[in-house]
Amino acid sequence: MKITGTFLDEISHDIPHQNWSRKEWEQDFQYMKATGIGKVILIRSGYRKFLTYPSEYLIKQYNCHRPSEDLVNMFLELSDHYGMDFYFGLYDSGKYWDTGDMQHEIDANRYVIDEVWSRYGHHASFKGWYLSMEISRKTKGAIEAFRTLGLAGKEKDQHLQTLISPWIDGPKAVMAHDAALRKDAVVTIQEHEREWKEIFDGIQGTVDVVAFQDGHVDIHELEEYLVVNKQLADAHGMHAWTNTESFDRDMPIKFLPIKFEKMRLKLEVAARAGYQEAITFEFSHFMSPQSAYIQAHHLYNRYKEYTNHA
Amino acid sequence: MKITGTFLDEISHDIPHQNWSRKEWEQDFQYMKATGIGKVILIRSGYRKFLTYPSEYLIKQYNCHRPSEDLVNMFLELSDHYGMDFYFGLYDSGKYWDTGDMQHEIDANRYVIDEVWSRYGHHASFKGWYLSMEISRKTKGAIEAFRTLGLAGKEKDQHLQTLISPWIDGPKAVMAHDAALRKDAVVTIQEHEREWKEIFDGIQGTVDVVAFQDGHVDIHELEEYLVVNKQLADAHGMHAWTNTESFDRDMPIKFLPIKFEKMRLKLEVAARAGYQEAITFEFSHFMSPQSAYIQAHHLYNRYKEYTNHA
Amino acid sequence: MKITGTFLDEISHDIPHQNWSRKEWEQDFQYMKATGIGKVILIRSGYRKFLTYPSEYLIKQYNCHRPSEDLVNMFLELSDHYGMDFYFGLYDSGKYWDTGDMQHEIDANRYVIDEVWSRYGHHASFKGWYLSMEISRKTKGAIEAFRTLGLAGKEKDQHLQTLISPWIDGPKAVMAHDAALRKDAVVTIQEHEREWKEIFDGIQGTVDVVAFQDGHVDIHELEEYLVVNKQLADAHGMHAWTNTESFDRDMPIKFLPIKFEKMRLKLEVAARAGYQEAITFEFSHFMSPQSAYIQAHHLYNRYKEYTNHA
Repeated sequence: MKITGTFLDEISHDIPHQNWSRKEWEQDFQYMKATGIGKVILIRSGYRKFLTYPSEYLIKQYNCHRPSEDLVNMFLELSDHYGMDFYFGLYDSGKYWDTGDMQHEIDANRYVIDEVWSRYGHHASFKGWYLSMEISRKTKGAIEAFRTLGLAGKEKDQHLQTLISPWIDGPKAVMAHDAALRKDAVVTIQEHEREWKEIFDGIQGTVDVVAFQDGHVDIHELEEYLVVNKQLADAHGMHAWTNTESFDRDMPIKFLPIKFEKMRLKLEVAARAGYQEAITFEFSHFMSPQSAYIQAHHLYNRYKEYTNHA
Repeated sequence: MKITGTFLDEISHDIPHQNWSRKEWEQDFQYMKATGIGKVILIRSGYRKFLTYPSEYLIKQYNCHRPSEDLVNMFLELSDHYGMDFYFGLYDSGKYWDTGDMQHEIDANRYVIDEVWSRYGHHASFKGWYLSMEISRKTKGAIEAFRTLGLAGKEKDQHLQTLISPWIDGPKAVMAHDAALRKDAVVTIQEHEREWKEIFDGIQGTVDVVAFQDGHVDIHELEEYLVVNKQLADAHGMHAWTNTESFDRDMPIKFLPIKFEKMRLKLEVAARAGYQEAITFEFSHFMSPQSAYIQAHHLYNRYKEYTNHA
Repeated sequence: MKITGTFLDEISHDIPHQNWSRKEWEQDFQYMKATGIGKVILIRSGYRKFLTYPSEYLIKQYNCHRPSEDLVNMFLELSDHYGMDFYFGLYDSGKYWDTGDMQHEIDANRYVIDEVWSRYGHHASFKGWYLSMEISRKTKGAIEAFRTLGLAGKEKDQHLQTLISPWIDGPKAVMAHDAALRKDAVVTIQEHEREWKEIFDGIQGTVDVVAFQDGHVDIHELEEYLVVNKQLADAHGMHAWTNTESFDRDMPIKFLPIKFEKMRLKLEVAARAGYQEAITFEFSHFMSPQSAYIQAHHLYNRYKEYTNHA
């Protein structure tokens, strides 16, 4: 079970920035390639006032700051050059987090999809859209948002894939800026299955890949969730990947690289559950040999040793 | 808009120590110099039982631990050698934080100013006093403390400058050891202006420079605060600098280096608001090529590229 | 006052893992040796589902994950080779933390002691047991657990030493995953003495060494606790060591390496209180020249300079 894709954490919600230039990003694409990663997924193209590319629409309509670099262009050029598949993560206005209403995300992203496709759609590496709204269970408006934006993305080119990466409402599903590491009120596997069946029914045909985050439940409970999620995906004609988190949710420092043993166990659970593809959040902070977190350098070595022998 | 000064974070409240010896500090003064920094401001000379210099007064009166190194002497020697202006940060007994009464700070620091001036006042680089009480809005006794200690400092030599660095009571004005990153009850620009006018009236003639911290409000709201603060300073015959924070207040890890893009935006806002000088909290943890935080190494490179081209 | 022992933080509760292989561990044993460390104490051999060695008993009875490496074997081989004394830390099922009942820890560890001794007892470096239950004041069942497990360990070989490392219920005795750094409701020295006398009475003859953690009280209050703890140990025929913590409890990041000045002060307090031995929690994250925390590299240098001259 190898990791074949990674998120690119620009703009970050909660992971401090590494302040890399194009030189470090190019080096990181080489490291990714060397580990077998062929897919890169921009986690989001903007968050509130901050943007990864100079969107005239968002600068005008949402008063966003004009960025000094066009990171989307840079990632696409690097993806073209290194033969990676690039997935574009939609804009997050922050209004959903403030109001619980997803209409803003729908409205903004219909324009973003138009703007981005006309600007970057010619890149050979542009292979899909990442619907960046992170949801769990029944989130108001989520089904409609995924339907509308999934369809809007696929209208640009029918070969474009659409990807979502939801979270399981398990014991580690706490806010990054809460001190707590765990909570007591957690979903049961039955509730999870029932509620996600409803969501899968709603998004069928507009979302191609569902990659649940694997870090919100304990490892000994992970397999039953992976099994249910794959069954749901199979039944709805979607692909199930696992998003194997490379950071550690069990530690008071939120967040540093995961202990390799935990990653190994999670990957082996996914293999047993029949998964074919794993992506990770994310390589550059938590697994890269040039990460600001030195633990990541060793995680890279451990992972390389493991995949060379496994 | 270049950064021309930095705090020296000894004794730290909330930033883990780097455990540098004189060798690393000398190297850091060279790095500072290379970025255009000519001012160094000791954040405080002591905090509760911990001291930066062996103050006989504080060891006796406040039962402080005798330090193994005289950091004030070291910083002054390095400042003399590298042509830096050194500002001495006053002692913080911690009693104000415990009791809300600033009388202890006034009493202790009248002695500290005497002791320090007689001991270190001959250094060519000793250019001023940093009144280290960090206040916001109407803090009980703050005006009298700033008046009394500002005057006491300036009595030693009329050329000595006095500096304060208050914070704006904005959404990010939360305690470092709180998990929360933001709060809801925040000052309005009108309240800020009215209350700070009262403080400026009270400290006029005893404080030369006011350098508000720039990290407690969102960047798109920063300009109006910078404008008001400069108007208040101009009207009272004081200098307004900006204290551009080089750490990131938006992340659950409190604190790692800021994303360069945020620093760039803040510096550009300050330039638009007519500011001539920026200092930062602080170079050695968050911008130095030898920082324990590797993100800082890249921030240094990004900042250098920016200032070479801007 | 030199540090002569360190914990090995496998499995960690709250310190992110460094992802080292045997190569880095062997290098670290060399660094330890170079600082005068001759004792290594495995903090615990397992925690909940995670194990340091492939315990057939725990895998079967507690559904633990089978580890990919046998760290106990590796640590013992390295200890044999470098002439270190190895102390085996017992298993922590986590049930005590969940239920307040220590019977599970007693039951599990009676088997673990049998299994471990038959498997690893032939190693020349196997010198003792670390009773890994961290207790403070009167903890339900603690006395019986220490008695039972101390005796079970010593039955294997009467030369084996048993070690505990309790904490003082001082102002910094807060949970690692709480945001707070301090609490108000703290023990008094009189309560501490009275309650610990009761515990020492109960465990006399089964525990050889008591090494209180030194980081839960302020440094200016530490001496009276060190004195009382040594008096209690002396009166009960036990050895008192100090466990001088090498991480900083005063900072919002939980946890990074301690400021050397604090470590120096704590070691000097222990020397004044008549202590002969200091161990630390722990070298590899917080004092090693190859730690992922660069502050640790400098702490190593400061400590080496200090012990060469002190």
